[in-house]
Amino acid sequence: MYKLLKQDKDSKARLGRLLTAHGEVDTPNFIPVGTSATVKALTPEEVRGAGTQIILSNAYHLLLKPGADVISNAGGLHKFMNWDGPILTDSGGYQVFSLAPLRKITDDGVEFQSHIDGSRHLITPESVVRFQQILGSDIMMVLDECVHYPCQRDYAQRSLKLTTDWARRSKAAFTDRSSSELFGIVQGGTYLDLRKQAVEELLDIDFDSYAIGGLSVGEPRELMYDILEFTVPLLPDDKIHYLMGVGTPQDILEAVDRGIDIFDCVVPTRNGRNGTAFTDKGKFSIRNARFKDDHSPVDEECACPCCKSYTRSYIHHLFNINEILGLRLLSLHNLTFYAKLMRNIRESIKESRFPRFKKEFLASYTQKPLDFARDNSPNSVRG
Amino acid sequence: MYKLLKQDKDSKARLGRLLTAHGEVDTPNFIPVGTSATVKALTPEEVRGAGTQIILSNAYHLLLKPGADVISNAGGLHKFMNWDGPILTDSGGYQVFSLAPLRKITDDGVEFQSHIDGSRHLITPESVVRFQQILGSDIMMVLDECVHYPCQRDYAQRSLKLTTDWARRSKAAFTDRSSSELFGIVQGGTYLDLRKQAVEELLDIDFDSYAIGGLSVGEPRELMYDILEFTVPLLPDDKIHYLMGVGTPQDILEAVDRGIDIFDCVVPTRNGRNGTAFTDKGKFSIRNARFKDDHSPVDEECACPCCKSYTRSYIHHLFNINEILGLRLLSLHNLTFYAKLMRNIRESIKESRFPRFKKEFLASYTQKPLDFARDNSPNSVRG
Repeated sequence: MYKLLKQDKDSKARLGRLLTAHGEVDTPNFIPVGTSATVKALTPEEVRGAGTQIILSNAYHLLLKPGADVISNAGGLHKFMNWDGPILTDSGGYQVFSLAPLRKITDDGVEFQSHIDGSRHLITPESVVRFQQILGSDIMMVLDECVHYPCQRDYAQRSLKLTTDWARRSKAAFTDRSSSELFGIVQGGTYLDLRKQAVEELLDIDFDSYAIGGLSVGEPRELMYDILEFTVPLLPDDKIHYLMGVGTPQDILEAVDRGIDIFDCVVPTRNGRNGTAFTDKGKFSIRNARFKDDHSPVDEECACPCCKSYTRSYIHHLFNINEILGLRLLSLHNLTFYAKLMRNIRESIKESRFPRFKKEFLASYTQKPLDFARDNSPNSVRG
Repeated sequence: MYKLLKQDKDSKARLGRLLTAHGEVDTPNFIPVGTSATVKALTPEEVRGAGTQIILSNAYHLLLKPGADVISNAGGLHKFMNWDGPILTDSGGYQVFSLAPLRKITDDGVEFQSHIDGSRHLITPESVVRFQQILGSDIMMVLDECVHYPCQRDYAQRSLKLTTDWARRSKAAFTDRSSSELFGIVQGGTYLDLRKQAVEELLDIDFDSYAIGGLSVGEPRELMYDILEFTVPLLPDDKIHYLMGVGTPQDILEAVDRGIDIFDCVVPTRNGRNGTAFTDKGKFSIRNARFKDDHSPVDEECACPCCKSYTRSYIHHLFNINEILGLRLLSLHNLTFYAKLMRNIRESIKESRFPRFKKEFLASYTQKPLDFARDNSPNSVRG
């Protein structure tokens, strides 16, 4: 359940709180991605220690491995992976359409081949809800089709019809509502009228909250901001606004400005594993030779275990010889950085200075020192 | 400095303590291997938390990467890697002869090519001592040649002459003895008279303590025990007896029985990364399909974070999808298991029941349940 605590006067930014059966989530907030029941390279204690309040896991991956029976026998996903906080599970729609080598949409749902072993599977809107109930997710997402960019209008329109139909069936299958919520997903590509239609149809079905999907899939950044600016105001104020698969610190700030409450993205962990560190002064690659003999912390402003106890020189060395500890430490630092960013955003909204905070953060963050390496890793991926 | 606390009456097992500038080490003890300034996949806090009192690092690897300057600028190896306990550094002799693709023994020392980038290096007994002093090692090893098995007598003899010559030069170069010790290494292959000659020559040079090298290099297990039985009594009682590159729980017990005080080996961490878990009831591979739905801990008898918070089923899943958390957890468990084994050995010596402890442990450890997978990973490697 979402509780709106404060609407910013100078922007669409909102301060709020999401209440789940496994604890509260202060919003705006960021959801680290633990695709296959593990936030890559980290323990749940470390994820929690970084300031994380909620994690995301993925129904598609968990259905393939380890499968429903194992997680059911474990007593659910929380117990299986030893995370006692809130879990949001994505439906797997995005993965079926992006990972599975063969898929066929039928009247029932979608038949696909596993990207791991080629085994055949059928998922339906109903089976995805049931599976997420077996997982014990606090927040479940409906099965949807996420169209990529660019996408022809007629495809986007047909796809939306499918997504809305699946949303309706998902809601009907969502009977045991005691300890979880089901979120609808707004699709519609880059077509504003389709976005509007999507919202109206989802509101008609009536979900616990609403996510905006199909963004950060290759479109120009400004186009994403425009779509958010158009779409978010169509969503109810008393429901959470979730932007899926986003993103970079810049995108998060722009989206919060436009009324988004929660985000998920692989960026902090994936970039951490690739050697990219986030700081208030921009991101940089620790692999850069200039850090070989730099005995200062990764981020002077950070109190995480990585920055408290290790130097850029040491972590550069670890990446240089492909040692696991290096990517562990940067993953931990990046999650800490994201949690701190979200905390700072919340405080700035609370203290009615979000626009100034955003401006100052972006000025510092994008004023990249010339000798910091450009990092070309992907900026966003839905988990 | 070594302090002998108790000599077992019923075996050659000894209880003792090694005093270093960075703390004490209770013996018998096991030294986890952190070859390149990291115990693979783990933080120093985790290594310490597992019960580890001392770690090993390797001069050969550190000389190549990150190099002497970086570690010197960091203020030494302890600060560089954030480990404030005792560090023993191996000389790199073993690696020069096992890893370097080309090497040439000269009057000075040995010229070799880096196994990483082919760059040419010369190390001498003196330079290796100097480098270990830059590292700030608590215990330094002399440069030696470790002959493999089988080894012709004339090669072993010539090699021993070289090793003894290098030992003499190492001692002469070891002038600043304020905060570190230099250990000699007994070589001589499988030839008992050469082993005896090696000990006599090293005693003549007079080292702080003595290691036995060139064992667990492919020879039959019983032959190693025979050589230990012959060689250890030749070493002074008031010096530590260090068996390099060993080993399995069985080998450790047999060697303690024959008077060995400290061990180092990659087995607990390397096997952990390969999916092998050690328990009092034997080792097993967590990758085995029988653990897919086994929701018990890896080791019922263990209180480490891996066994306290995770199940075999979950760790099987992590290995099944190549997730780093899996090998982290098993590495941590295995180090905990080794530290507990050494603690139990010490207690049994203290309470004059070592032979019984050894017998009971081996009975339990080798009575492997049939459905536990056979693990064919290597049993010992000098770190």
